[in-house]
Amino acid sequence: MEYQSILNSIEKEASYKESSGNVASYIPELAKIDPNKFGMHLYCINSGHYGFGDQQERFSIQSISKVFSLTLAMSLLNDDELFKRVDVEPSGDPFNSLVQLEYENGIPRNPLINAGALVIADILISTLDNPEEKFLNLIRTISDNSEININPKVFQSEKKFSHRNAALLNLMKSFGNIKNPIEAVLDLYTFQCAIEMSCKELATAFMIYANSGKTLFDDTQMISERKVKRINAIMQTCGFYDEAGEFSFRVGLPGKSGVGGGIAAIHPGQYAVTTWSPRLNPKGNSELGMFALERLTTLTGFSIF
Amino acid sequence: MEYQSILNSIEKEASYKESSGNVASYIPELAKIDPNKFGMHLYCINSGHYGFGDQQERFSIQSISKVFSLTLAMSLLNDDELFKRVDVEPSGDPFNSLVQLEYENGIPRNPLINAGALVIADILISTLDNPEEKFLNLIRTISDNSEININPKVFQSEKKFSHRNAALLNLMKSFGNIKNPIEAVLDLYTFQCAIEMSCKELATAFMIYANSGKTLFDDTQMISERKVKRINAIMQTCGFYDEAGEFSFRVGLPGKSGVGGGIAAIHPGQYAVTTWSPRLNPKGNSELGMFALERLTTLTGFSIF
Amino acid sequence: MEYQSILNSIEKEASYKESSGNVASYIPELAKIDPNKFGMHLYCINSGHYGFGDQQERFSIQSISKVFSLTLAMSLLNDDELFKRVDVEPSGDPFNSLVQLEYENGIPRNPLINAGALVIADILISTLDNPEEKFLNLIRTISDNSEININPKVFQSEKKFSHRNAALLNLMKSFGNIKNPIEAVLDLYTFQCAIEMSCKELATAFMIYANSGKTLFDDTQMISERKVKRINAIMQTCGFYDEAGEFSFRVGLPGKSGVGGGIAAIHPGQYAVTTWSPRLNPKGNSELGMFALERLTTLTGFSIF
Amino acid sequence: MEYQSILNSIEKEASYKESSGNVASYIPELAKIDPNKFGMHLYCINSGHYGFGDQQERFSIQSISKVFSLTLAMSLLNDDELFKRVDVEPSGDPFNSLVQLEYENGIPRNPLINAGALVIADILISTLDNPEEKFLNLIRTISDNSEININPKVFQSEKKFSHRNAALLNLMKSFGNIKNPIEAVLDLYTFQCAIEMSCKELATAFMIYANSGKTLFDDTQMISERKVKRINAIMQTCGFYDEAGEFSFRVGLPGKSGVGGGIAAIHPGQYAVTTWSPRLNPKGNSELGMFALERLTTLTGFSIF
Repeated sequence: MEYQSILNSIEKEASYKESSGNVASYIPELAKIDPNKFGMHLYCINSGHYGFGDQQERFSIQSISKVFSLTLAMSLLNDDELFKRVDVEPSGDPFNSLVQLEYENGIPRNPLINAGALVIADILISTLDNPEEKFLNLIRTISDNSEININPKVFQSEKKFSHRNAALLNLMKSFGNIKNPIEAVLDLYTFQCAIEMSCKELATAFMIYANSGKTLFDDTQMISERKVKRINAIMQTCGFYDEAGEFSFRVGLPGKSGVGGGIAAIHPGQYAVTTWSPRLNPKGNSELGMFALERLTTLTGFSIF
Repeated sequence: MEYQSILNSIEKEASYKESSGNVASYIPELAKIDPNKFGMHLYCINSGHYGFGDQQERFSIQSISKVFSLTLAMSLLNDDELFKRVDVEPSGDPFNSLVQLEYENGIPRNPLINAGALVIADILISTLDNPEEKFLNLIRTISDNSEININPKVFQSEKKFSHRNAALLNLMKSFGNIKNPIEAVLDLYTFQCAIEMSCKELATAFMIYANSGKTLFDDTQMISERKVKRINAIMQTCGFYDEAGEFSFRVGLPGKSGVGGGIAAIHPGQYAVTTWSPRLNPKGNSELGMFALERLTTLTGFSIF
Repeated sequence: MEYQSILNSIEKEASYKESSGNVASYIPELAKIDPNKFGMHLYCINSGHYGFGDQQERFSIQSISKVFSLTLAMSLLNDDELFKRVDVEPSGDPFNSLVQLEYENGIPRNPLINAGALVIADILISTLDNPEEKFLNLIRTISDNSEININPKVFQSEKKFSHRNAALLNLMKSFGNIKNPIEAVLDLYTFQCAIEMSCKELATAFMIYANSGKTLFDDTQMISERKVKRINAIMQTCGFYDEAGEFSFRVGLPGKSGVGGGIAAIHPGQYAVTTWSPRLNPKGNSELGMFALERLTTLTGFSIF
Repeated sequence: MEYQSILNSIEKEASYKESSGNVASYIPELAKIDPNKFGMHLYCINSGHYGFGDQQERFSIQSISKVFSLTLAMSLLNDDELFKRVDVEPSGDPFNSLVQLEYENGIPRNPLINAGALVIADILISTLDNPEEKFLNLIRTISDNSEININPKVFQSEKKFSHRNAALLNLMKSFGNIKNPIEAVLDLYTFQCAIEMSCKELATAFMIYANSGKTLFDDTQMISERKVKRINAIMQTCGFYDEAGEFSFRVGLPGKSGVGGGIAAIHPGQYAVTTWSPRLNPKGNSELGMFALERLTTLTGFSIF
């Protein structure tokens, strides 16, 4: 079966599904989104672009940005330096829990939970001049689109409700694992979360993880093949908050979700695939997105396992 | 490079390595093992058997048996029935922690931690007549060796030091998630842990996970392809206690370790591979085994990512 | 105001109160009790007995027995020996939580939570021949009533639902803090909980804590004055599960409650006072009992503070 | 035996004691203190002042200030309003743990741990104009000394190392339990901790808790008798971090300690007593202070129990 007809059949199946999930509400600006948006895009190494629905409409990538910031940090630092400040183990607790951080002396479990992404942001500030610009440049380059940008309203809205992230930062600072001022770290982190991309742009960007670290359109090596494998391994075990096992179990691909309703995943050597549907399940992952990706690996007949 | 020469070079590299880990000591009988034992075996779908060292000497498979009991349970029950009694999420806590179990009302995080394997044992007792025999039969069948058996001294020794597992069982029983008498469950669980296999036998048995659920030697479908993918996904995220991420990160293969010093892993569609070295790192996984497997995926140039 | 008129006015006030609490239901035999039973008894050092309602009807003393077993253990061992096996700090968690026990390596927070009382029972078994008999003798002596006994139906019923206590025992045994067989400890513990006493008998028994360790009726020194102060200090900080602070705050007397609906408290040098009403508040303490004791210290105008 | 001779004998006993504790080091300015300072002061309702050693030298009262801020808040708000924002239960965890706060939705366990005192500070800011001044006035009034003030160096030093308190504040703000800006609350809290008083001044101030809410020198009712009993009950169960039970057990008086090495305690209706010795035990309480107070209640022959 060919990818477009698989995607068409997923779109059709999804239309029969009742989705009862709610849109993320803790950031007021995100709560305004139309809950019925739904798009999917698959970018195949060998045969190009496929998709349906709202695949070209931009949405807030939120936590999916953590994969890009990890990529940027890994391209700048060696692994020993980086991974003594953030671990690579899955987290058994909900995504923003302070408990585990306290038990483990301010070292976050992995770079894809909030605490870990905040440490990565702190590292980028210490390493780069103008990290916001460098971060945006990376995304624009790998998605081959210089117009990608943040949504300033989402940035402002999110900044106002970041007390829990400020708590994480202060706790890690008390353990010596945050080097820059709290406000600066919070600003960079909120900036990266507020970036908007469409399913198509996001799939284009995620191609570097399916394509051994190289962009497909111009074959630029953005990060070494070895490091890409590590990023994929981290996405596999840690990409879906407290549902990483469920996703690995049902879908079988490395990936990352965001509370904006987006999911990006890859099949190494085959394709990058993205979905967007703002209704979230109780664990904070897109309900329809999880369904669509499960159907994809079922209908194509292969996951990485 | 050909597998045997890769394995030879791993054996050589390992001989230069200082291993400071200790043999598991909480089970007196296991503490008697020669800490310098070291063997490795790779069983390739296309090209057969490779190995070195103590690859034909039997050792206590311990927690590796959890993969077999999960396989047996999944072959008997449908997923909905099974996975409402044990979850499939990685566990952020050490392998025998009661804390998480209490927070989650007696539902273990996954079938590869002690609590989860005890629930699986309880399920097998409820479903099968003579579960010990059926369990042993499964292993003998897939490893093509009818002489595999338990070590009765290890069984006795382990039974005497099972207070923590009894605590887990009682706690789960208080939540209604254990249906049979505590003693019966503890007996089956201790029985499965006390089974002894060599690296070669274990690799032969694990071939079913690399070969879509079929034995390689006689092509019997032991469990459906879809279920094998699920087992592999669970091994990927949960197979190494609190080091699942590190293993995924360094090795990139689904696998399972045991405190007897064994590790079994697979590359779907390629090979099953096993190591044995009794010295454990502080997280309870074989130090030299982790090293050997990391070298294997580095030297062969591919992991699943 | 004289004690009997104070008690009368408390009885009247209580009759206007709507009590919405439920009778303890986890032990089937206890769930059968008439929820509207209500009695109170005050035994004054100088002026004798006062009371109202069902003050002479026996009820299951349950956890109140922990004070008597602590008393027996303290009369047999010196403090250093005893308090290295159980701490004297209040517990921030619900009364039967395993979490804290695991974090603190099998040493219970205090002797008035289940885990601590189980350690005390273990100590009594190690120290005494026939501990059940000795325990019963102590209670019969200090309550001046040789007919006090257990309710065998409650004992049987409770024994069947003791998985959580068995979990605590196994966990502590894994840390080496239980020396005797699990069953034996569970038997003694369940025995002590199943004892039945009336408010009047309980107040007579508790007089030793108000009267410097001596029975009032025949002036026998049952335990040293210094040790009684320690017991009272422990009741003050640890006697009411997760409501010790609330009780200290509202009532201001050392005391102990049980899920059978009883509460026993003392004002050192003044009186012992007991209440019985089976409806429990959400924290597991008798709703009307808490109210009655609060009114008592308000109307008499003194607490220990 | 008369108080002065008891105090003399305590001073003598203490001189033979080897104190191995360390001065608090997390606030650099506090770490500079001479570890061998030692003073004690007892202020008796009937017979006035007694003391020895460095009883007239001022030290940083630190957490002892939490009793004063609770007193101020209780004099301004009714109990229902106040105690829905902070509970009155002892805390089983170390004094600055975030864990419990997260489990209990941002409601601190009691007003004498950091989280609780920060909520009290937030309440004072919402209720009072110029709360710093009002707070200082309260202390000056009840200690009958208008020259009491903060140490500005300690204030500055402490402010720089308040990341953990900022984490607590942000976490509570995310639960809606902090109403004012984080910085403002942190400023008031740090201000109150930086106040300096001598043993004699502190004992004079604490007399209101021993004397039913009234100053002894001019008989002013600072707070109602009923509220004083509540404050004493809270001190009894929560005044000594994770050593409240131990203090209750060994000393038997309501009290509060601070990391500056001070302890203030009271015997209702009898006396207020204070000690100062900067060496702390591993739980963060003054080692010699604990000893001196234990000897006091032993030698005088009465605690509240």
